[in-house]
Amino acid sequence: MTRIAKDRPVITVVSVFTVEPKNQQRLLNILIKATNVVIRHMPGYVSANFHQSLDGRNVVNYAQWRSQEDIEAMMRDATVQEFMQEVNKLATVASQLYRVAYTDEVFQRPPTAARPLPQVGSA
Amino acid sequence: MTRIAKDRPVITVVSVFTVEPKNQQRLLNILIKATNVVIRHMPGYVSANFHQSLDGRNVVNYAQWRSQEDIEAMMRDATVQEFMQEVNKLATVASQLYRVAYTDEVFQRPPTAARPLPQVGSA
Repeated sequence: MTRIAKDRPVITVVSVFTVEPKNQQRLLNILIKATNVVIRHMPGYVSANFHQSLDGRNVVNYAQWRSQEDIEAMMRDATVQEFMQEVNKLATVASQLYRVAYTDEVFQRPPTAARPLPQVGSA
Repeated sequence: MTRIAKDRPVITVVSVFTVEPKNQQRLLNILIKATNVVIRHMPGYVSANFHQSLDGRNVVNYAQWRSQEDIEAMMRDATVQEFMQEVNKLATVASQLYRVAYTDEVFQRPPTAARPLPQVGSA
């Protein structure tokens, strides 16, 4: 489980991949394989979170790293670059580095609760 | 604190705003105000998480909602539309609806851990 919070000491990389819907699952498979084979073992890796758009045309990776330097080292890695060549055959990608500016979440009752969810709550 | 997990019953909206760096903080202020004044009180709202790009040119909102219907109702709301007119004066936005496909996070030592790391050669 990945946590988003303002006080976590991470840099967030949001990557939006654009893909033909028929290739969305194939793209996801390559990204997940790259994460498991090489990326998650690199210094400073914190998390990767892959999302598939309901319309099939996009994949988002919400990734967390310890520092910008760790991200740059990962991108220079030869095995990572081989995986990115596979990705580039299927998709275009736009990535940016972010810090968390503000978060807000309503209180959520556990899904097994008998009563309905409240509409308003504290963060 | 917002959680990303494959088994959470949410739809994720990833919105990427593009803005002049001089307007990034002003855009954030409008989005945070819209969240607090109207969006967080709407049915099905779970969380909003605003991120500012290190280069000043983007803002990302990683938002979670109970359902696609709740998102559509929010976008039809008159007060939300007034805030979006303010946003559109400063930024362009690309939004998509997603489901979480895969998450991976490395184990992290809590930052407040009581015991220091073992010192090599100090015994």
